[in-house]
Amino acid sequence: MNEFNLIEKYFNWTKLDSTTLGIGDDCALVSIEPNNRLATSVDTLIEGVHFPENTSPADIAHKALGVNLSDLAAMGATPKYFTLALTLPAYDQSWLEEFSASLKTLANQYKIDLIGGDTTKGALSITINVTGVVTQNQALLRSSARVGDLIFVSNTIGDAALAWQQLQQDIKPSQQLLKQFNTPNPQVILGQALLGVANACIDLSDGLDQDLGHILKHSGVGAKINLADLPLSEEVAEYILKTNDWCLPLAGGDDYQLCFTVAQDKVSEVKALEKELGIQLNSIGFITKDIGLEYSKRLDQACSAYQHF
Amino acid sequence: MNEFNLIEKYFNWTKLDSTTLGIGDDCALVSIEPNNRLATSVDTLIEGVHFPENTSPADIAHKALGVNLSDLAAMGATPKYFTLALTLPAYDQSWLEEFSASLKTLANQYKIDLIGGDTTKGALSITINVTGVVTQNQALLRSSARVGDLIFVSNTIGDAALAWQQLQQDIKPSQQLLKQFNTPNPQVILGQALLGVANACIDLSDGLDQDLGHILKHSGVGAKINLADLPLSEEVAEYILKTNDWCLPLAGGDDYQLCFTVAQDKVSEVKALEKELGIQLNSIGFITKDIGLEYSKRLDQACSAYQHF
Repeated sequence: MNEFNLIEKYFNWTKLDSTTLGIGDDCALVSIEPNNRLATSVDTLIEGVHFPENTSPADIAHKALGVNLSDLAAMGATPKYFTLALTLPAYDQSWLEEFSASLKTLANQYKIDLIGGDTTKGALSITINVTGVVTQNQALLRSSARVGDLIFVSNTIGDAALAWQQLQQDIKPSQQLLKQFNTPNPQVILGQALLGVANACIDLSDGLDQDLGHILKHSGVGAKINLADLPLSEEVAEYILKTNDWCLPLAGGDDYQLCFTVAQDKVSEVKALEKELGIQLNSIGFITKDIGLEYSKRLDQACSAYQHF
Repeated sequence: MNEFNLIEKYFNWTKLDSTTLGIGDDCALVSIEPNNRLATSVDTLIEGVHFPENTSPADIAHKALGVNLSDLAAMGATPKYFTLALTLPAYDQSWLEEFSASLKTLANQYKIDLIGGDTTKGALSITINVTGVVTQNQALLRSSARVGDLIFVSNTIGDAALAWQQLQQDIKPSQQLLKQFNTPNPQVILGQALLGVANACIDLSDGLDQDLGHILKHSGVGAKINLADLPLSEEVAEYILKTNDWCLPLAGGDDYQLCFTVAQDKVSEVKALEKELGIQLNSIGFITKDIGLEYSKRLDQACSAYQHF
């Protein structure tokens, strides 16, 4: 099967309204409403690095698009379109069917259009480039945290990292942990709801310690975090009780929850959103004038975040 | 070195005017003028597949961005921004310095802004996603060839394929052939100049036979090509004289020249462009009502274009 037939067969879905011309020409063409800014981001997932070798094609597709949608969520952007660069070791019909069906399901859920792609032969790797739109000057940035802001985190953190650790130790993780690890749900709806409410926002891909660190650095501020307030699932709470290993939720990464800062007079709006969206939103600390990230308790070991090289 | 330092050090250049926010947040933000359509395309280059293993980092960077710019050229689009997903086997300072310097040179030449990226560890692979703009309804499409149109090709074709063939046979190609193969020049200026002149356009990445075939299929027409009119370098012409292997210029690929069709009454405009831009523009045949691609001479063997799987 050549590349054109492959794309035609597995990835040429019905296009959305904004796509003037989809897959099948040198470029795709897209129209953008006036006063919108484009928000764009790219992420690569590599087998054995970002997902284990036996991960199902459906889960790989979900995660590859999900982590990219998470970047749009962190800006409060509305997803518009994405491109897919897929490198496969061999042509495998059932793999491609599962992969494309799962990709399409998540894409349809967030109304994002697949407008172009490239397929090549090599070690399994997926690069997705997402683009969304956000009204001029409305995007949630890393650089807008203010002294006195409360710091919030959505849902729970550390679940994906615990699943990954258990997999490496040949322990079978629970369904719930595996779900967090394999098919993270991007907080797109929450991100959009936080426009005009949050000051700064980031998604937790590399772990709270490192990602909140980006907000602090870009905003020129510090933070105090109360470890007892970290939102943890029962399993992660149990693990910490047993091991005292706070690095798991702080530096484990792969959570794809949002971490955002909110001025004190807007906290009631966050509480309202929590009810409206049915998403747990916990305050874990506050922004300080003093530079640096301080935890309520001295950690046994320094949490060193994942280093790519 | 962690990912953030790496990007900061090698890929965080001064941003252009349209980039509201460049590298360093969850997404880049870009503003687009009203009435412009976005044209976007993605291509992956893999070591050993798209370039030989001993290719210099400077040449890899040039080719990776060049083949993507070529897709914008084929639509007549003006380059605006790109993202880079770079997978490297190891952190190598001199490799990265050479790669980023070459990428920056080509990016500056075509005024395209690097707005985001991702670096991962793995087999060497570069995925670039380019975005350009083109005025509403002006883009050069594959689907607009009309019966009677003359078919043109820019510069010469087959040089890159001859270089590749020689490399595989351990013959050292000439400087000129190597240059075509390693650092193809995207025909961005020509593509923009063809807006309002050409009916259909495509870039020759997979070879004339296959790429012109896309125009014919999308436009619902056929073509007759006079092989004697193919624009060939001296070296390729000599090779064909010796081997009678027309497949090299027809199916060799990697030329990144433009192939476009022009109504008879606009041919004089093409001649004027040829002088103005100093780019050789040769007519090689014409569009027919009868479906199919017919060559002036029966070829010894069927040219089977490169199959990705």
